[in-house]
Amino acid sequence: MGFGARLMAAAEATDRVLAAALDPATRVPARLAEATRYAVLGGGKRFRPLLVIEAAALFDAPADAATTVGAAFECLHAYSLVHDDLPAMDDDDLRRGRPTVHKAFDEATAILVGDGLQALAFELITSPAVPAARAGALANVLALAAGNAGMVGGQYCDLNAFDLDEEGVGRMQAMKTGALIAAACEAGAVLAGAEDEHRVRLRSFGEHLGAAFQLADDLLDVEGTTAETGKRVGKDAAGRKATIPARFGAEEAHRRLEARVAAARACLEPYGERAAVLVEACRFVAERRS
Amino acid sequence: MGFGARLMAAAEATDRVLAAALDPATRVPARLAEATRYAVLGGGKRFRPLLVIEAAALFDAPADAATTVGAAFECLHAYSLVHDDLPAMDDDDLRRGRPTVHKAFDEATAILVGDGLQALAFELITSPAVPAARAGALANVLALAAGNAGMVGGQYCDLNAFDLDEEGVGRMQAMKTGALIAAACEAGAVLAGAEDEHRVRLRSFGEHLGAAFQLADDLLDVEGTTAETGKRVGKDAAGRKATIPARFGAEEAHRRLEARVAAARACLEPYGERAAVLVEACRFVAERRS
Repeated sequence: MGFGARLMAAAEATDRVLAAALDPATRVPARLAEATRYAVLGGGKRFRPLLVIEAAALFDAPADAATTVGAAFECLHAYSLVHDDLPAMDDDDLRRGRPTVHKAFDEATAILVGDGLQALAFELITSPAVPAARAGALANVLALAAGNAGMVGGQYCDLNAFDLDEEGVGRMQAMKTGALIAAACEAGAVLAGAEDEHRVRLRSFGEHLGAAFQLADDLLDVEGTTAETGKRVGKDAAGRKATIPARFGAEEAHRRLEARVAAARACLEPYGERAAVLVEACRFVAERRS
Repeated sequence: MGFGARLMAAAEATDRVLAAALDPATRVPARLAEATRYAVLGGGKRFRPLLVIEAAALFDAPADAATTVGAAFECLHAYSLVHDDLPAMDDDDLRRGRPTVHKAFDEATAILVGDGLQALAFELITSPAVPAARAGALANVLALAAGNAGMVGGQYCDLNAFDLDEEGVGRMQAMKTGALIAAACEAGAVLAGAEDEHRVRLRSFGEHLGAAFQLADDLLDVEGTTAETGKRVGKDAAGRKATIPARFGAEEAHRRLEARVAAARACLEPYGERAAVLVEACRFVAERRS
């Protein structure tokens, strides 16, 4: 199975877990449930679940558990998008080609949808589908990626980034985007109970991959179109956001992207052919157009 | 040691854990760290930590672990207050007698502080201070209380509560306030590895206590003063919030409060004198003036 088919399979498996978790028959208020499904079932590549699933497969972890852990990462990712789009934050109207949650519903609902998706991430990662002996460690990996030293801190820096130096930009992006991608890769090893050496190796892979992902994202803002990306482009320059292409030009950003991809692939060398899908994931990140 | 001294000891122990977790020397952006400390170290009775600590003590769970689990519950509670106060939600300027987080800082920071505190709750409850064998189950109890079927769903209902019937009001309050208080009591039993019978019993105790807590809170809004409560009063009637005193009068609310206190105490009967502090907690809830 090639990379595209693996990504599609991961997306379908993730959506099954998410759809079951967001079953409208529960006692959740109907419109809140609808807004939550809108936020998390409305497309998305399910790239983080793929990373969890493929990293877990390297060490022969059970696939069902990996799918549930992947869905938890997707919930956390989806929550961060909903909150980042809020008027008080990046104030975006479009996401994945559709109105953002606060536009399609309202601001209070969007705040609550994000809050609920973060809780759902931790509910899933500690659910019966995940071996009890690993659940605590997995939830800890997710929490560290999510919090003030991870995604939340990164978003804070991004909103207040206008005087960041180059090192500051790198640190901000490592927190905002890199932390969750690195944690997804690490979580695969944790789920499998792999030794610390592998846990560290998968985390390093994810850190380089996350940096490559952010560089590609920033390049898309410079080089992409709204039709391709499903969101407003050119906003980084307009908003004076601190990105590598904005500061150093597209050519330098492409050079750094390739260096990150090479470093990520190097982390996977000990796993040989078993890591073929993760190797392809690097290429996917570097060449993505949306 | 009487109830007041126990509550103070629990508060001090909780604040030590929280202060260490929010150490300014970490790589968290300084102003975000400051706003987070403002939100969670700015007073508060630490009633939920007390419940965790006392419920855990019933079954001889290690006190250090109970303190950390209690601090996790306090983080979740603090996050919910920060988000509930936001302009798009309850739009409150005062909390515990001080400007709310979005007033003292700004709206984006307040959203991120809440998001980060929810993550910190799960970081603490799965930290090395908590036995690894219990961490997953504890995080699951916390996540269920936090999510769309708990606090988030309750806040959603509260914001859209104008046409709720009496049953709807009860359900909304059970989700918004009751879920976390019940989970705190249950968590004590889970941390100790107590049998399901005790887990269910402590949870029932917490559900009655949570209902009593909400009734007392609603009565304070009718009968209290801003000087006593540290927040705006009379806003429920002004905002046509669905509360029992607003719908049925203070006398009926007092009657129901007493019935809940009695039901809560009845859950504790098997534990005799060992549950003395939790029995006093019921009285504390019923008679609180802030």
